Amino acid sequence: MKLGANYLGNNECEFTVWAPLLKEVAVEIVAPEKRLLPMEKDDLGYWKVREKNITPDTLYWYQLEGEKKRPDPASHFQPKGVHDPSQVIDHSTYTWQDQDWKNIPFPDWIIYELHVGTFTPEGTFEAIIARLPDLKELGVNVIEIMPVAQFPGARNWGYDGVYPYAVQNSYGGPNGLKKLVDACHQQGLAVILDVVYNHLGPEGNYVSDFGPYFTLTYNTPWGTAVNFDDAHSYGVRNFVIENAIYWLGEYHFDGLRLDAIHAIYDLGAKHILAELAEAVEVFSQQQERPLYLIAESDLNDVKVINPQELGGHGIQAQWSDDFHHCVHTLVTQESIGYYQDFGQCQQLAKVLQEGFAYTWNYSPSRRRYHGNYAGDRPPYQLVVCIQNHDQVGNRMLGERLSHLTSFDALKLAAATLLLSPFIPLLFMGEEYGEDAPFLYFIDHSDPNLIKAVREGRKAEFEEFHAEGEPPDADSIETFKKSTLNWQSRKEGKHKVLWEFYRELIRLRQEIPALTQREQYNSKISFLEDEKIISVYRWSADSEVIYLLNFNGKEVDYSLVIPSGNWQKRIDSSESQWQGSGSKLPQSLSQSQSLNLSPYTAVLYQKA
Amino acid sequence: MKLGANYLGNNECEFTVWAPLLKEVAVEIVAPEKRLLPMEKDDLGYWKVREKNITPDTLYWYQLEGEKKRPDPASHFQPKGVHDPSQVIDHSTYTWQDQDWKNIPFPDWIIYELHVGTFTPEGTFEAIIARLPDLKELGVNVIEIMPVAQFPGARNWGYDGVYPYAVQNSYGGPNGLKKLVDACHQQGLAVILDVVYNHLGPEGNYVSDFGPYFTLTYNTPWGTAVNFDDAHSYGVRNFVIENAIYWLGEYHFDGLRLDAIHAIYDLGAKHILAELAEAVEVFSQQQERPLYLIAESDLNDVKVINPQELGGHGIQAQWSDDFHHCVHTLVTQESIGYYQDFGQCQQLAKVLQEGFAYTWNYSPSRRRYHGNYAGDRPPYQLVVCIQNHDQVGNRMLGERLSHLTSFDALKLAAATLLLSPFIPLLFMGEEYGEDAPFLYFIDHSDPNLIKAVREGRKAEFEEFHAEGEPPDADSIETFKKSTLNWQSRKEGKHKVLWEFYRELIRLRQEIPALTQREQYNSKISFLEDEKIISVYRWSADSEVIYLLNFNGKEVDYSLVIPSGNWQKRIDSSESQWQGSGSKLPQSLSQSQSLNLSPYTAVLYQKA
Repeated sequence: MKLGANYLGNNECEFTVWAPLLKEVAVEIVAPEKRLLPMEKDDLGYWKVREKNITPDTLYWYQLEGEKKRPDPASHFQPKGVHDPSQVIDHSTYTWQDQDWKNIPFPDWIIYELHVGTFTPEGTFEAIIARLPDLKELGVNVIEIMPVAQFPGARNWGYDGVYPYAVQNSYGGPNGLKKLVDACHQQGLAVILDVVYNHLGPEGNYVSDFGPYFTLTYNTPWGTAVNFDDAHSYGVRNFVIENAIYWLGEYHFDGLRLDAIHAIYDLGAKHILAELAEAVEVFSQQQERPLYLIAESDLNDVKVINPQELGGHGIQAQWSDDFHHCVHTLVTQESIGYYQDFGQCQQLAKVLQEGFAYTWNYSPSRRRYHGNYAGDRPPYQLVVCIQNHDQVGNRMLGERLSHLTSFDALKLAAATLLLSPFIPLLFMGEEYGEDAPFLYFIDHSDPNLIKAVREGRKAEFEEFHAEGEPPDADSIETFKKSTLNWQSRKEGKHKVLWEFYRELIRLRQEIPALTQREQYNSKISFLEDEKIISVYRWSADSEVIYLLNFNGKEVDYSLVIPSGNWQKRIDSSESQWQGSGSKLPQSLSQSQSLNLSPYTAVLYQKA
Repeated sequence: MKLGANYLGNNECEFTVWAPLLKEVAVEIVAPEKRLLPMEKDDLGYWKVREKNITPDTLYWYQLEGEKKRPDPASHFQPKGVHDPSQVIDHSTYTWQDQDWKNIPFPDWIIYELHVGTFTPEGTFEAIIARLPDLKELGVNVIEIMPVAQFPGARNWGYDGVYPYAVQNSYGGPNGLKKLVDACHQQGLAVILDVVYNHLGPEGNYVSDFGPYFTLTYNTPWGTAVNFDDAHSYGVRNFVIENAIYWLGEYHFDGLRLDAIHAIYDLGAKHILAELAEAVEVFSQQQERPLYLIAESDLNDVKVINPQELGGHGIQAQWSDDFHHCVHTLVTQESIGYYQDFGQCQQLAKVLQEGFAYTWNYSPSRRRYHGNYAGDRPPYQLVVCIQNHDQVGNRMLGERLSHLTSFDALKLAAATLLLSPFIPLLFMGEEYGEDAPFLYFIDHSDPNLIKAVREGRKAEFEEFHAEGEPPDADSIETFKKSTLNWQSRKEGKHKVLWEFYRELIRLRQEIPALTQREQYNSKISFLEDEKIISVYRWSADSEVIYLLNFNGKEVDYSLVIPSGNWQKRIDSSESQWQGSGSKLPQSLSQSQSLNLSPYTAVLYQKA
């Protein structure tokens, strides 16, 4: 069931809203001219009215049982924010120029995650467009946009959105977003959107006035859970599925990143993610273009990405946070919170060989067993990163990896990411070691809520033994501090790092043993004490070996290679990359001992 | 990890209890001679002490942090009930006589559910033994015993048990139960136990003093959920898995009926039921005898019985409540509560063809979509009934089907059950149309709890528009009223019904088309208005057709048969079964119109 104000052309519009337990619902037209449109309810609780003389840009909301006035839960636009009337949008007025666009084949994806508000000083969709050639040059091919569903105020990561169909007004609204997606496609970049189906934000959250969007059966870290399996769940499921189709259809997105699916509770006989995957697949076939779903998941559960005939949800890919945590702990030596579960080369070796470190192993931080085996799935069904908005921004001071470790270790982490068999995700600015932090910021209007956020974050950080006061999330300075210093990417070490990333991406796309990732096709060995991992990977027509030295000291490593002549392709310790100067030979023709500088990555390819 | 007081012989005993958050735990020996045994804790929170001079039958409890005294959560026996000390049990003193026993092949199971307290006037395990020859004669081959885990007082269905390892004292304790299982095996009957892993009862429930057995993440109809996926869940999972192994091992059970698995919440990467199924399979191989798990499930989810390589839990069978509800509504015309979802022949035809009526259809009573397709699983992976303790006992007046419908309809329901491709379950007394109700009864000692139960049940029945006062659950009269009038089975209509059941079971076991149930191998047609269902089933070497007339009037039905000579095998309308006298031919050699009496079942087999 299509929801919201569906503009039909010729000043005709159909309004549909789901409110199964209400006795009377009407559309109140607010502007250009006030009037009330009574609605009719069907058996499943959908209220409808089809009306002439509705111009695009009409402002409206719903009058519930003659009393409350509420914006449309499926509003396409909230020009004045979360508490004010919704606006009718005529999507046909935008003329798309991306007819020739074809999606990038999924295994080739290299994702660049960005936050609209802080990627540019302007903080708008349109301002991003000028930077696309730079991202193209870097070599990434998919942009992942952090959530744009209307949130309170002008500053938010996006996870406090309360109108899942409405494009944030302060970012430039529907037209701005369309221009950005269109520009990406014209320049050969895919674009995916981060969507949040596990909760709604705390301010401007009026959906419960309409119907049972939430259930008391489950308690999530963010309060009551979205109702995906309880009485009336059909309406909530429809709301979510139509939302996904809406973004993919009206905004031409190439896929969606599903936020925190571990907080989507559904014990019914058809999991909402399976139903969503089915619906997107049907839509993809109708549209004749491939569309993909990626789940952010803390479950380490292969079920998410297994095809439905194997009892899975049939989602194309999910995160492997284990990859991040392995790399992070090895280059920072941090061991607090969930990092206590990591820190061993053996774990990273296991991740590189089969996807997860925790495959029903006991997790000390969770105090329970965690994860299962995903090594039979193609490795490109896992998305990995060494930084993202959460891993950076949920630190009290928003430190990026470049603030926490040495330049050599940064390059090593980048090589571990980009030579991996998984789909890599870069967090904006990571590619040049951005100096700005990425902090947590909000712009709520409710003082109690602001206070609650402040206290909540402080308590959270105290649990992690962080000292001092967290930056004020509600301050505009906190937001501004998080904006990228884009020009710095061409300067000094930033430039070297950027070029190192570009070269890694180029090699990743050139060498078949790195490109072909239907299976792992790898042999991995490690020395825990020496902190060295050796990865041998092959395809039908190529072979590579790369060494990752996570040791802060020089290490001699006896490299065993298959016969043949092996050429060095990249070596992070070379002075070209501002390394200490390499002692590694340009070519190898037999097994031999290599002297590796601290935090070195080196790649050899069989000639 | 083995739990409880593990008697090692020679007056030596090892005590193990899981209490991961406590700082001090000791065993307090209460009798024969008081003393305190300090325990030591391992990394996972298991406290242990191994002690000499512990005679079997020693009474003990745990002293928690020098203060609280609590019975053992894994107590093997609570001689004085739920609030008093636990007793050490030496399981080796019982001499088993069932060495020659082999389990019944699973597809052949015909289950007889009984409640120990009301099956005989004595209400004990041993009193059941005298009745086993009668059950053998009837033809059932598996006895399902309602829960025997120690509950408060002497009267309870068993679902308020609080010591999952302890055999109810008032039923005869460990030795009584062993004698019963042993006797069953010697007489060729399998025995399964109903075990409750989704909650513990409200009185005598001290496990939370030991550790986080419950989680706040989920809210079940019975309160907080058992902790299967939260921090420390490993200890609770071990408690449950060891419990299953304990019953199968120490008490020689042939399988377990898992109560209400829809209230087992586990969103981790390995579902507790999958882990349980794996553990039971391993134990089964060690024991060299097949062991089976059956899930009571309200989910209609094939995942429960799918093998693990198809993403399932790997449980051998689950309930299809849809079968019950279809038959019940067709023979009673009831339409209140969940019965509003049923009442159509089309639904029963669908169940007979593929297992569930609700396969992601909209359920009016649930106000959501429900179930999925299970038709690719062998039909013997579903257990069905026309009566059970819940469907009878959760009615305000505990009416059995024999109180609600005609004798003809009773026979029709029995034929629908016993000619079905599923595993049938009979509820004690059903086979002869027992006159006694099966009421809800308790024997709590806490007056507030008794009051809460009274008020809760009253409110529940008011929701179902039942009039009048429910019988007093706490009264011994309510319990006594529910005891079977066993001698009546040999009298009048009771005897006819009993013989009809016996004949149906005999036919079910004789005719290959009814026996072989790896696939459905059936064609089913129905006439909704006439309320007739025709079922054609075949095996490699036999064919049957049976007609089920749910119409309260005579109906002419044009039966289409494959060529051949078809012999009538059973006809419920014959005067032999106290029917109205049959108008159905003894043999058929061509398609023809048949005149079916009201509520008739007739079976033809191809000669």
